[in-house]
Amino acid sequence: MDPLLAKAIVVAASAVGAGLAVIAGIGPGIGQGFAAGKAVEAVSRQPEAQGLVIRTLLVGCGVAETTGIYGLFIALALLFFNPLVNLL
Amino acid sequence: MDPLLAKAIVVAASAVGAGLAVIAGIGPGIGQGFAAGKAVEAVSRQPEAQGLVIRTLLVGCGVAETTGIYGLFIALALLFFNPLVNLL
Amino acid sequence: MDPLLAKAIVVAASAVGAGLAVIAGIGPGIGQGFAAGKAVEAVSRQPEAQGLVIRTLLVGCGVAETTGIYGLFIALALLFFNPLVNLL
Amino acid sequence: MDPLLAKAIVVAASAVGAGLAVIAGIGPGIGQGFAAGKAVEAVSRQPEAQGLVIRTLLVGCGVAETTGIYGLFIALALLFFNPLVNLL
Amino acid sequence: MDPLLAKAIVVAASAVGAGLAVIAGIGPGIGQGFAAGKAVEAVSRQPEAQGLVIRTLLVGCGVAETTGIYGLFIALALLFFNPLVNLL
Repeated sequence: MDPLLAKAIVVAASAVGAGLAVIAGIGPGIGQGFAAGKAVEAVSRQPEAQGLVIRTLLVGCGVAETTGIYGLFIALALLFFNPLVNLL
Repeated sequence: MDPLLAKAIVVAASAVGAGLAVIAGIGPGIGQGFAAGKAVEAVSRQPEAQGLVIRTLLVGCGVAETTGIYGLFIALALLFFNPLVNLL
Repeated sequence: MDPLLAKAIVVAASAVGAGLAVIAGIGPGIGQGFAAGKAVEAVSRQPEAQGLVIRTLLVGCGVAETTGIYGLFIALALLFFNPLVNLL
Repeated sequence: MDPLLAKAIVVAASAVGAGLAVIAGIGPGIGQGFAAGKAVEAVSRQPEAQGLVIRTLLVGCGVAETTGIYGLFIALALLFFNPLVNLL
Repeated sequence: MDPLLAKAIVVAASAVGAGLAVIAGIGPGIGQGFAAGKAVEAVSRQPEAQGLVIRTLLVGCGVAETTGIYGLFIALALLFFNPLVNLL
């Protein structure tokens, strides 16, 4: 088989894989929005706690972000330093 | 094998990958809408807290937006500075 | 290889990619509907706050709309100023 | 290559892309239904606020409808004034 | 190429596209069901408000139905007055 065709198949599948990977971002998007909603609720009830609320929100969102970053990392790996092509 | 066919396969998969990537936007859309709903609830109950509420809403939505931007970035990378074509 | 077939493969995938991209609209649709539901609840309880409520609703929905617009932009890019065909 | 096959591939993919695009309608359907449910709740509790409630409902649903219309627009573009066939 | 094969490819993809398009019906199905549930709740609590509740329900469900109709329209267009076959 032609090595070029082999490469083309792998690289093409990497493009689809990169797109699929960042779909993981659905999760943090929903979760962080929920947390933001609860933070809004909290600061409106206790305005004096705003600093505390936003700090807690950011800690929680930082944790929730991780899986989105996993998706981004896999997508970037597939696009910019594709390790699969070297396996051929 | 014809290099043109190889390129065509990769570029075609990039179009599909770009479309898949922005599907990540489902997450921020749901999450930010939830946060907006809570903000609406909060300002109707404590109108005097409106400035505080909207500021907290925007901080939270900024965090939730990030994964949507990851998707957009991967899509733009696939469309406008496609790094995969150079791997062939 | 025939350049026409190469183009056809890329353009066909662009049609599928454009369709996939606007699926991102699921998110804002759900989120903004939730926010609208909360706004309805709020104005029925405090009719005098209607102006404030609708303004806050529109701010929140504007933020939630962004990822839907990302999807629309990628779809329009694939349909109307397709950058991928030039990569061949 | 036969130009007819090239056209057939692109037009066939446009049919699939159009079908995918209107799947975006899942979002507004869920969101507007939620808003309608909250409106029903509100008018049964405060029947005198019905006009206000329905007006707020329609404002919110108008915003939520936008991403569904993005999907419809891309689908109609693919079916009725297909710009991709001209790229061949 | 055989024009019959070209037509077959397009018509086959139209069948898939039509099937994908009506998947949009998931949204109104969930949303209107939620609204109907809230209506049932409301009339059981305030039976005298039944007329008002059902009228509000129908307004809301009419709005939520629209994106399902978009999907149906695209599916019907693909099946009964397929504009894509004429593009060949």
